[in-house]
Amino acid sequence: MDINMDRFFNPSSIVVFGVSDAPGNLGRIITGNLERFNFKGNIYAIGPSRGYVGDREVFTSLDDIEDTPELAVILVPAAKVPSILEDCARKGITHVIIESGGFSEFSTDRDALERKISKTAEIYKIKIIGPNCFGIINIDAGVVLPFFILSPDYMRSGRVALISQSGGIFYDTCMISSCENIGLSKVISIGNKLLIDENVCLQYLINDPATHIIGLYLEHFSDGMDFMRLASNTDKPIVLLKANRGKTSREIARFHTSALAGDDEVAKAAMRQVGVTMVESFQDMLNCLKVFSLEPLKGERLAVISRSGGHSVLAADSVERYGFRLARYSDSFLEFVKSKKLNVIRATNPLDVGDVYDLNLYTDILRAALMEEDVDGVVFIVTYSSESDGKKVQGFVRDAAGLSRAFKKPVALSVITNRDEWFPLREAADFPIFSDCDCAIWALSMSLKHHRSIKRRKPDRYTKTSIEVKIKDLQIPLSQNRGSSSVFEMLKGYELPVAEYMVAESEDEAISYALKIGFPVVLKDASFDILHKTEKKGVVLNIGDKDELVNRIKQMDAKKYLIQRMCPPGIEVIIGVKYDEVFGHIILLGLGGIFTELIKDRSIRVISVDEDDIGEMIKELKGAALLKGFRGAPPADIDALKRIITNICRMVQDNPSIKELDINPVIVYEKGEGAVIVDAKMRLI
Amino acid sequence: MDINMDRFFNPSSIVVFGVSDAPGNLGRIITGNLERFNFKGNIYAIGPSRGYVGDREVFTSLDDIEDTPELAVILVPAAKVPSILEDCARKGITHVIIESGGFSEFSTDRDALERKISKTAEIYKIKIIGPNCFGIINIDAGVVLPFFILSPDYMRSGRVALISQSGGIFYDTCMISSCENIGLSKVISIGNKLLIDENVCLQYLINDPATHIIGLYLEHFSDGMDFMRLASNTDKPIVLLKANRGKTSREIARFHTSALAGDDEVAKAAMRQVGVTMVESFQDMLNCLKVFSLEPLKGERLAVISRSGGHSVLAADSVERYGFRLARYSDSFLEFVKSKKLNVIRATNPLDVGDVYDLNLYTDILRAALMEEDVDGVVFIVTYSSESDGKKVQGFVRDAAGLSRAFKKPVALSVITNRDEWFPLREAADFPIFSDCDCAIWALSMSLKHHRSIKRRKPDRYTKTSIEVKIKDLQIPLSQNRGSSSVFEMLKGYELPVAEYMVAESEDEAISYALKIGFPVVLKDASFDILHKTEKKGVVLNIGDKDELVNRIKQMDAKKYLIQRMCPPGIEVIIGVKYDEVFGHIILLGLGGIFTELIKDRSIRVISVDEDDIGEMIKELKGAALLKGFRGAPPADIDALKRIITNICRMVQDNPSIKELDINPVIVYEKGEGAVIVDAKMRLI
Repeated sequence: MDINMDRFFNPSSIVVFGVSDAPGNLGRIITGNLERFNFKGNIYAIGPSRGYVGDREVFTSLDDIEDTPELAVILVPAAKVPSILEDCARKGITHVIIESGGFSEFSTDRDALERKISKTAEIYKIKIIGPNCFGIINIDAGVVLPFFILSPDYMRSGRVALISQSGGIFYDTCMISSCENIGLSKVISIGNKLLIDENVCLQYLINDPATHIIGLYLEHFSDGMDFMRLASNTDKPIVLLKANRGKTSREIARFHTSALAGDDEVAKAAMRQVGVTMVESFQDMLNCLKVFSLEPLKGERLAVISRSGGHSVLAADSVERYGFRLARYSDSFLEFVKSKKLNVIRATNPLDVGDVYDLNLYTDILRAALMEEDVDGVVFIVTYSSESDGKKVQGFVRDAAGLSRAFKKPVALSVITNRDEWFPLREAADFPIFSDCDCAIWALSMSLKHHRSIKRRKPDRYTKTSIEVKIKDLQIPLSQNRGSSSVFEMLKGYELPVAEYMVAESEDEAISYALKIGFPVVLKDASFDILHKTEKKGVVLNIGDKDELVNRIKQMDAKKYLIQRMCPPGIEVIIGVKYDEVFGHIILLGLGGIFTELIKDRSIRVISVDEDDIGEMIKELKGAALLKGFRGAPPADIDALKRIITNICRMVQDNPSIKELDINPVIVYEKGEGAVIVDAKMRLI
Repeated sequence: MDINMDRFFNPSSIVVFGVSDAPGNLGRIITGNLERFNFKGNIYAIGPSRGYVGDREVFTSLDDIEDTPELAVILVPAAKVPSILEDCARKGITHVIIESGGFSEFSTDRDALERKISKTAEIYKIKIIGPNCFGIINIDAGVVLPFFILSPDYMRSGRVALISQSGGIFYDTCMISSCENIGLSKVISIGNKLLIDENVCLQYLINDPATHIIGLYLEHFSDGMDFMRLASNTDKPIVLLKANRGKTSREIARFHTSALAGDDEVAKAAMRQVGVTMVESFQDMLNCLKVFSLEPLKGERLAVISRSGGHSVLAADSVERYGFRLARYSDSFLEFVKSKKLNVIRATNPLDVGDVYDLNLYTDILRAALMEEDVDGVVFIVTYSSESDGKKVQGFVRDAAGLSRAFKKPVALSVITNRDEWFPLREAADFPIFSDCDCAIWALSMSLKHHRSIKRRKPDRYTKTSIEVKIKDLQIPLSQNRGSSSVFEMLKGYELPVAEYMVAESEDEAISYALKIGFPVVLKDASFDILHKTEKKGVVLNIGDKDELVNRIKQMDAKKYLIQRMCPPGIEVIIGVKYDEVFGHIILLGLGGIFTELIKDRSIRVISVDEDDIGEMIKELKGAALLKGFRGAPPADIDALKRIITNICRMVQDNPSIKELDINPVIVYEKGEGAVIVDAKMRLI
């Protein structure tokens, strides 16, 4: 537990700046929230004029307060914030939340204000959350600091924490948690992330014993690699609603919280690597928060129990859609069904219990299903109305919660009922209710993914190397950083199988080399950088003999020529490396030609990767079947391909100044025959 | 309006069979529902013993009733149903709903019971819904026939109808409509569809003035082509939740409502062709029912107005995700924002109204956005709590409903609030509330698709030809129905460009033909059917001269040889035709080789198709870029490809005995250079 961060959530006293009795004053909502949630410490209000707001005395200056409050909350016009912050500093306040807006999110000419704040914070070692935020919530401690009214009547304390870069999503979460019975441990609005960003908060929540599940809404990563490092070191499920993914939204986000968008595809790959569940909508985030409130799903075998045949069929569709399979019941389960004389037509999975009207038996059936070794998790689908089984279903929900914990297997309840039962159902237990079996089964697939991913991932591998620092390490001269031959030399230094070549200064030299390695050969213009050689006709393939070579050299009329062995055909693969501003170096693998370009069939990882990762990258490709031997063709030399990727990663880690590397194509031959790199381009920073 | 079907929904009197005061008796729930919903006609109860159940007299036989009830509802054990049906027939009852289960869905040995029922129905011309169903609901007439308790307190009359093959989904719909304020016109549980299937009900609902939107839950189509015909003749949106899509679920459905599963891919294509919105989950169905309650969306330009920047960014992501674009505001909109002195940072789209606290201005802003010519629809995102703007938001919902209707543009409200406001918000107006902006924008994309599809589709084109009937029409002898050459002849009869060929009985004949058409040629074994010629080495490509041909013929040692011109390379396409049991003949187009097989890149339509359809089929392919000219290659002769598809369809329509046709490959050349069919296989029934 970071004691320094913890003071935000458990301060002994709080001062709120910006309280008045003016109509629409928001500061007094903050003190009101503290009162409603029964904050036990001292609350001080400071405003423009001395007096009372309700029962609360309002001071005009910190000097009027004897105590040094542990936390200051500032909600005054932006321009006034720097001087108030200095007052706080002089008073010895170390923790400040600036809720005021009107900073860099408003316009770039407000950046200066933020710089002033940063400077004061640095000098006085003040920790600051915000600006432009709703502050934080710790219900148990009564620390409820948003400037909108909240009530303990519907706010529930619980195991889910949220970090949000948007006030709106912070607000949504507070509201919907009351409708969905999702209990909250800590809620943090990070606003413009001037000094405290999501990573600082994430670190805190990872260590917070009250927090078991962490939700995040982000528009941009402050430090993606550090985020990966943190995420890879906790088993607490992290659900990331990442906005700002498309071109359009990046435009808006720029105005919004001054977000710099990363590449969405890279972010997805990075999150998967460290077992973070990344979702596209608030709805999906809620379903994930629900599923992670359950026991983790550890296998793909589901039991579906349903009150109607229609739901069984829909659920079976979803089971297949999300890659699960229906568990097979043992004889003892069948015995159980017989012994209870259950009116179940067939003891199949899905089990249709539509004719079982005694709800106590539901509990027995659920227990029997959970006892089955072949069952990793249960989906139980119920529809009922207030007139039929209201109270009884509530009891069943409580039973399900207990059984699920006892057997350490998730039970996803998908329940639909009428208006009168909506809340009684959801509030029957501290146990999530899904409103749709497809959503429930999708969410279970996220649980299984998370479980598998944390088992597989290797923590402590994520440290971003700044490319600026390491530029001196690069082993090839910068002046030549775009030409193929110098890149080829570098690749060869890492045992990478570059197709035999030489750079010839003259026709004669070219011819004698071609004769040495044997025709057919490839002729390339080696005079200068030609990025797309084929299109610019700087390359002639498949030159069959000396005469043709002479002719082609004459036509090309270059200063230097690169002669290369013409490699026989095989499966063409491309490998790319890119330095991503957010996550550092990434590696991309794709099948050559139309596969990569036309259907975006490619697989991405943040470096470093190990052999397992590389194996998965290959498997992920839609065109992977080609490598395995398609339509009776022999399988390709996947081991050779893996060695190439491994060595490229090693090269990149040794030479972090590489900004882009494009190896295209790598020709992969039959198993045992290896692979060869035909062309490569590189850009340094 | 089908007067005969309408009697189910508006009978003047109803008799219910199976009423008693035994514990758990379900029949009396039916009479109870009729009473609660204030059914105005006579209600008769018949049960095993004479007496009273509550205030209601129970008779033991129809003979005790003087009147001839217009509708009979039967809920007695399956075995007793046939004799009761005969009683009904003798009494002159013409409309019967059999709710009892225990028929073919229970086991195949119960089929006989169903046959008995069918026979009686045929003789006496009785219309029957069921068996194994919940009956029907027509709230306005008080006709509420399910054997579970419903209450007028939460059931709402409205514009949405449902046809359900599952009782569970029927039940769900009744329940959730009360939570989501979705008003229902007619709800129909079709059960085993013994005599009345979804198409009969669909026809009725299409003509029902109270019904504006039709939801369906189906596990199998009774007659897919007829469904297409009906759907293509109405502008009422139809939302189909089609279950039983995967392999697993088909197993279950067989036990459930004796469903025969169709091919999911074909069903999807068929539904798209006639503008039916097909969804995968109940949740998606609900969102569609909501969006279709709005004005139709007629274009792709959306205005997003939101109370928070975070929602704006998320919404912009969704706008891009679902193929929309953000509308551009005119100067007059900017003027409006200025004139109202709105505290809006920038009059951009999305518009962040987070600093506008006067909710009356929301109505003004919405009106101004709807007035914009460039705006086809509005997404308005609000978060609020009972403590902040409860009543005011309810007023805004009513305003939005009015404005949306006035401007004939959809306004999708995505609102999150706390527990206390959940229902007051939803019940503020007869206007749908979405719980998530991503779902709302997805649903809008369904609205736009529907609108575009009904504008484009051509009704009255869907009549399935029974292949049995037309077999005599086929123009090639059945004995030869699998060989290439007879198929080639047939194709040529439809102006299809088959690569020049001849069937040679001898080596000499083969050589002289090869010399005539010129080398290189292809040699095929024409002796008998070889389905996968390449794999079985029954084909030799690219034979360069006479000597090679002689050698190859000797090696092949066949009875007959097919010599064909070796076509130069181009873009390879495959075209398939299949007779689908549900929808009749379908046509499939895919790019050749790995594209079709590896990544399932193919496009399917139910025949007939016209030139527009064919154009779209081509566009749909992921690999379409190859045909358009990829990486600087010249565009392919798409017109030639279209002609081929058109002629194949014509051929299939003339010869409905074709069960399968596989044209693979068609080589398409550069624009103006045509296309050529290299190989084709056919199977008749």
